[in-house]
Amino acid sequence: MKFLYLIILGLLTTSSFSQNDSTFIRSIYNTALSEGKAYNDLKSLCKDIGARITGSAEAEMAILWGKQKMESYGFDKVYLQEITVPHWERGTKEAGWVKDEYNSIKKVNLLALGGSIGTNGTIEGELIEFSSLEELKKASKKDVEGKIVFINQVMDEKHIQTFKAYGGCYPVRGSGAVEASKLGAIAVIIRSLGIPVDEHPHTGVMQYNDSVNKIPAAAISTLDAENISLWLKKEKANFVLEMDCRNYPDVKSYNVIGELTGKNANNIITFGGHLDSWDTGEGAHDDGAGIVHTLEALRILKELNYKPNNTLRLVFFMNEENGNRGGQDYAAWAKSRTKENHILALESDRGGFAPRGFNMDGTPEQIAMLASFAPIFKEYDLHIFEKGYGGVDISPLKESFEGIPLVGFVPDSQRYFDFHHSPNDVFENVNKRELELGCAAIAAMLYLFDQNL
Amino acid sequence: MKFLYLIILGLLTTSSFSQNDSTFIRSIYNTALSEGKAYNDLKSLCKDIGARITGSAEAEMAILWGKQKMESYGFDKVYLQEITVPHWERGTKEAGWVKDEYNSIKKVNLLALGGSIGTNGTIEGELIEFSSLEELKKASKKDVEGKIVFINQVMDEKHIQTFKAYGGCYPVRGSGAVEASKLGAIAVIIRSLGIPVDEHPHTGVMQYNDSVNKIPAAAISTLDAENISLWLKKEKANFVLEMDCRNYPDVKSYNVIGELTGKNANNIITFGGHLDSWDTGEGAHDDGAGIVHTLEALRILKELNYKPNNTLRLVFFMNEENGNRGGQDYAAWAKSRTKENHILALESDRGGFAPRGFNMDGTPEQIAMLASFAPIFKEYDLHIFEKGYGGVDISPLKESFEGIPLVGFVPDSQRYFDFHHSPNDVFENVNKRELELGCAAIAAMLYLFDQNL
Repeated sequence: MKFLYLIILGLLTTSSFSQNDSTFIRSIYNTALSEGKAYNDLKSLCKDIGARITGSAEAEMAILWGKQKMESYGFDKVYLQEITVPHWERGTKEAGWVKDEYNSIKKVNLLALGGSIGTNGTIEGELIEFSSLEELKKASKKDVEGKIVFINQVMDEKHIQTFKAYGGCYPVRGSGAVEASKLGAIAVIIRSLGIPVDEHPHTGVMQYNDSVNKIPAAAISTLDAENISLWLKKEKANFVLEMDCRNYPDVKSYNVIGELTGKNANNIITFGGHLDSWDTGEGAHDDGAGIVHTLEALRILKELNYKPNNTLRLVFFMNEENGNRGGQDYAAWAKSRTKENHILALESDRGGFAPRGFNMDGTPEQIAMLASFAPIFKEYDLHIFEKGYGGVDISPLKESFEGIPLVGFVPDSQRYFDFHHSPNDVFENVNKRELELGCAAIAAMLYLFDQNL
Repeated sequence: MKFLYLIILGLLTTSSFSQNDSTFIRSIYNTALSEGKAYNDLKSLCKDIGARITGSAEAEMAILWGKQKMESYGFDKVYLQEITVPHWERGTKEAGWVKDEYNSIKKVNLLALGGSIGTNGTIEGELIEFSSLEELKKASKKDVEGKIVFINQVMDEKHIQTFKAYGGCYPVRGSGAVEASKLGAIAVIIRSLGIPVDEHPHTGVMQYNDSVNKIPAAAISTLDAENISLWLKKEKANFVLEMDCRNYPDVKSYNVIGELTGKNANNIITFGGHLDSWDTGEGAHDDGAGIVHTLEALRILKELNYKPNNTLRLVFFMNEENGNRGGQDYAAWAKSRTKENHILALESDRGGFAPRGFNMDGTPEQIAMLASFAPIFKEYDLHIFEKGYGGVDISPLKESFEGIPLVGFVPDSQRYFDFHHSPNDVFENVNKRELELGCAAIAAMLYLFDQNL
């Protein structure tokens, strides 16, 4: 077996890249690590703009910020794509309490889920706990009717990739209100989709369904979920909820687009992140990191005087969090530009952590090309080059352009759900070097695709 | 080329491990991630004991703590190995100021370097800056004599592995005092060996040399270094330094040892981390993480009822930071036990970050065995299985046992020098999942070596 492994290692270290490729990629990394602008750009997005939910004044400011940044870096074209987006607001009243039969009261940390209706004053109901969405689905109407459902489904920390743990709980947030309402519940509160047991609630989008009543939905912190669960093991309790969040009519908004024009100007490589965030924290990892990753990647390629073969089109997508209208409208608009030939899309929306590699949603041949880049990234500590998901914003491109490969940047996932959609997703929780290494990895990958497609 | 890569990928995913191996390693990870004790053990070491420099009361308490932990986990043998260690104390006075000719004064954040003499009251001298140790070596005595040397050597952030950047600056801390003294300087201050520009000074060991006068040595924060450098570009300045640190006679101390006895009891696999730390912060990453990584690895193997082929000997080494007497005395003691056959040693001393793999100081055949374990770790996101350094504590074993392979655990290095040897190396800066994944990786690697050696 030893002999076999030595052969394989020998083959893998034989790369087909030129000295020029290696030198250019080293320049990309040097620029990102020693003269990078990503960290300060992220600070500006987080502190000068802040949380920027779709339809808010902050989102408008973020559009201006993005356009101005792209212009200041001298990209060949900078423009806005008008789109129509949903508009939900949290409002100003948002609180919840647990109350036992002797009126012992404890306030909990909660956030309304995105899209939820308000409570129209205060509502109160007996709490009924389910350990999972599946358990709730099996319950009977007589047990649930008139009560407030508490779904205490724990993210499975045994998954190595935290996104798998998230995927397992995602339906709780998306469908919890519909399932609880089917059984006559008056509201639903869920355990936050976060891994640590701490005081931060995590919001995120939820859905209603026209066939059942809409009921208010909120997420409580994992620590409150643990405590309430202990409480309910000893005695009954009521939950008191007040929220004045609501949905408003759709409004106008924009994707922000910047380009370096390619020698083959109509061959398009689209890449970017999403400019909107939830309305808590600062959207630093989600997806401020993706915005500055991709902004910095294009800035570095331009600074190194790179002349792309294909047009490198950077898109700051609006409304990933609660509608994906930016992604949908971009794909439709791109399809309407009949001269354009869309050859690849790449997205960063998994946080600003140390890079591990790239996933691709593509054919075996396309994935083999991605995998063939692995040797050149070995010295940069990247090792994942395999089949996987591209990203929410770029996913509609698959409908518009059959066979387009979609590439997702893969940073280390261990800490992502400490911060995701919570007040804790702030600039201070992004590490400068980890962020910069992501910018360099993305710039290098864009370069390699541009050279090889 | 595509075809070739598909073949290689095919070969790499064909592993020679049994289903039992895979199942057992999955159990290790499940235990670490869902019923782990490492995070709470680290909290206890950091908060109940705190910083624990060799020779201090805290170091004594840490020895008790370690012995008690090992006993509480029911290892087959738990005992202390008596050793003699150096004893240096920071004392109570430690401060520095920059002062210009108009007596404008600015206090700086500094830490005496470990082993430095004190100032015997306050000393003051004109500051003379050098951008590197090499530049200092080229200076002339007339420029330096009677002054305080400031070595402002920046860690090269362009290195992908931060330990390489550290290696480049290590001689500044180790030899700065000797080189400055050769030219008649009265003290030396160095820019801290830390990557971020922030307010935390980073201490660490320094050396004197009998051929030149001993002068006091301290590290200032990277932020102060940047500011002083700007100041000195405009005008001259003095530095005022007071430190009452000093060296005391050697004292008695201990390595703490716990074992699971193997079927071949005299075949020994030694593994561990170092129990001492610097006397600032809490020694959380350096090397509380290594202590709980290896403690938890043995606890998990025992909890899973694993009966090792070889004796698994866990050593909490004392005095890695300023002498390595624990490592040296352990190696000498092991050699004196003539019936013992030392087959491998493994160390964790690079922080509690997400695992990337393992390095080995060994023969090509030994390294090929390490590399042959790579496929089984793929699903756990580890990818480094190659030649490299083992660790300071286990390095003396190489002299005692010719040909013994030394294995170093490799976590992600990006954030390590944000914390290393600074007040910032506290429990709160260790992530629970990242720590637990390290414990599991080490337990799995011990299992594989135990099965295959």
